[in-house]
Amino acid sequence: MVMDFTPRFAFLTGPWNYSYKALKKTGACVIAIPALDLAKKTVQIGSCSGAETNKFEKFKLTPLKAQNVSAPLIKECYANIECRVVDHIKKHNIFILYGLAAWVDNARPEKRCFHAIGDGRFRADGDLINHRRIMLAKLPPGV
Amino acid sequence: MVMDFTPRFAFLTGPWNYSYKALKKTGACVIAIPALDLAKKTVQIGSCSGAETNKFEKFKLTPLKAQNVSAPLIKECYANIECRVVDHIKKHNIFILYGLAAWVDNARPEKRCFHAIGDGRFRADGDLINHRRIMLAKLPPGV
Repeated sequence: MVMDFTPRFAFLTGPWNYSYKALKKTGACVIAIPALDLAKKTVQIGSCSGAETNKFEKFKLTPLKAQNVSAPLIKECYANIECRVVDHIKKHNIFILYGLAAWVDNARPEKRCFHAIGDGRFRADGDLINHRRIMLAKLPPGV
Repeated sequence: MVMDFTPRFAFLTGPWNYSYKALKKTGACVIAIPALDLAKKTVQIGSCSGAETNKFEKFKLTPLKAQNVSAPLIKECYANIECRVVDHIKKHNIFILYGLAAWVDNARPEKRCFHAIGDGRFRADGDLINHRRIMLAKLPPGV
C-alpha cells in the first residue's frame, strides 16, 4: 500500500515467506512490478518458495545491479523500486518501506499492470480516468 | 490494503481528514466502494470536507442502515463493508479495521471499480485474469 503522497509503502509479510528472512537481515528490498505479459509467470513465481528454488534461474529472469540496495532489480519487470525498511510492526506483520530510487522501462510495449483480487484471479489495468482538475488543491507540489 | 487472506484492512488516515474524528470516536466505519459510473462524483466528494458539507445531501446519496455499526451504508455504491477498528498505529497513521459484514449490489449494471494512481488520475478495472489453478495450494479453504 502506498502511504499517502509519500514514497513510503506498507507491506505485509511474515515468517511464512522465504523473503521475510532476507528483508529482516538486509533491511532493504526491491519492489519489482511486472506488467501483464508476465502475469502467469508472476503467479508461478509466487506459488513456489525461494527456499527450494533459484527463481531467477528457473523463470529465466535477469538480475540487474541496484544503486542503493544489495537486492537485484528484475530486468523483465516494468518498474523496480529500491526500498529500505524504516519500521516493522510485528503485531500486524507490516513493514514500512521507504522508496530510495525507482526505475521504469518505458520502452516495453506492454505497460498494463495487474492486481490480485485475492482468490487466484487478477484484474488488469483498464481505462485511464483523469480527474486532476478536481483534485488539484489536494495534490502536493510536484505530483 | 487488504491484509493477507483475512477480512482485515490497513487504512491510512489522520487528523487532516474530517472522518478521522468520527473513526476515533465511534471505533467503526463503513468502507463504501463506488463503481466507475460514480468516479467523478467520488473525486468531488473526496475533494471537499464533511466539516463544511453535508455530503449525502450535496451529492444526492442515499444512506442505508448498517447492521453492525452506526455509520450508514451508501445505496449508490457497488459494495459496502461494515468495519470496526481493532488497532490504531498512530506513528504511521494506520488503522487496522476488521470487516463485520459486506454488502454487494450485484444488480447494478456497472461493476468496474477504479483505483487512484496518486496524481489525480485513476485506473478502471480491465480484463479479468484467472490463475486459480496455479495458486490453489496457496488459497485458504473457502476462498
